[in-house]
Amino acid sequence: MTLCDIGNTNATFFKDGKITRLGIENFNIKTDEKVYFICVNDRIKSELSRSENFIDLEPYFEIDTIYQGLGIDRIAGCYGIKDGVVVDAGSAITVDIMANSMHLGGYILPGITSMLKSYESISQRLKVTLNSQVDLDAFPQKTADAVSYGIIKPIVTLLNGIIKDKNVYFTGGDGEFLSRFFKNAIYDKMLVFRSMQKLINEKGIK
Amino acid sequence: MTLCDIGNTNATFFKDGKITRLGIENFNIKTDEKVYFICVNDRIKSELSRSENFIDLEPYFEIDTIYQGLGIDRIAGCYGIKDGVVVDAGSAITVDIMANSMHLGGYILPGITSMLKSYESISQRLKVTLNSQVDLDAFPQKTADAVSYGIIKPIVTLLNGIIKDKNVYFTGGDGEFLSRFFKNAIYDKMLVFRSMQKLINEKGIK
Repeated sequence: MTLCDIGNTNATFFKDGKITRLGIENFNIKTDEKVYFICVNDRIKSELSRSENFIDLEPYFEIDTIYQGLGIDRIAGCYGIKDGVVVDAGSAITVDIMANSMHLGGYILPGITSMLKSYESISQRLKVTLNSQVDLDAFPQKTADAVSYGIIKPIVTLLNGIIKDKNVYFTGGDGEFLSRFFKNAIYDKMLVFRSMQKLINEKGIK
Repeated sequence: MTLCDIGNTNATFFKDGKITRLGIENFNIKTDEKVYFICVNDRIKSELSRSENFIDLEPYFEIDTIYQGLGIDRIAGCYGIKDGVVVDAGSAITVDIMANSMHLGGYILPGITSMLKSYESISQRLKVTLNSQVDLDAFPQKTADAVSYGIIKPIVTLLNGIIKDKNVYFTGGDGEFLSRFFKNAIYDKMLVFRSMQKLINEKGIK
């Protein structure tokens, strides 16, 4: 069985215990085996609806929320988390709060790569390499640090205001990096795949 | 006398008590009168160096800082502020901290327009109009709010962590809007021009 999580930039596959990632532009819908997927990319989703081997899990997912239009990637990330904060740090960074298996809401930040591009598009002077070691407790003293602080500090500060004694689960391409800024953070690159597997088992999807 | 502050997106003029703004693409270097300017745009700065009527104020500004490569727009914003936090909210949002006429450092966030573009470039689903009334004390319950919260909350939260009992001075295109989120905020669209005027008087520049 192959599981596939199709985002805005990458498609991530899980098969035989291994995760592989493919740029969305190289995504190939030809396959001889069943692929259970979720997809936030409208164009690819529409293509996949014409393939018998691709099974969209989206209709099966249910979550208790009043959020209007919660993306299937976020639903899948939260599914199976009873209490805690779920951070999916990819092209965008989505933050969702779960309490007693209820989704309480969430917010979206641009991902780290998008933020770096945004600075660069404002001015070539703001084109820098992220300083992942930037001191978040001191005022920056050069452009690379001023930008790095501007990217990392909001992510960390907003989350700290929410987490308190809650568990925080990180996933996505930048999840491991960001989890380092938090005590008791759980980095789980399998978070979404675990939810998909759980759903397939629970609903007996074939 | 005309003063001119040339940024990454706009050139802002001050003449006869009036402020006018021009898109950088419409900036015309032909003038019959003296224009005292500061400029962060390398291309335009190089063009202006060939005009006798444009007087670059950058070499005259001095500020006590260890920050490497502080932009002239930020120097001008801070010049004349003894104690307080200076927020210039334009294409980028620069935040600089002054204490006892010393610059203690600062950080940079993408401006509100740049942030909206950044979300849009991640996914068309994240293309929204800013909800300027979004509740920053509740978890968002729809995409437009999740994005608006993601833009405004970091600006407000990071600043609140710094301001404490300091004065905070807002300037720039989004300065007035952002100043509304703070008690005791001072919105001063003349901040940079006031500094330029002060400099010209103090140094007797002609």
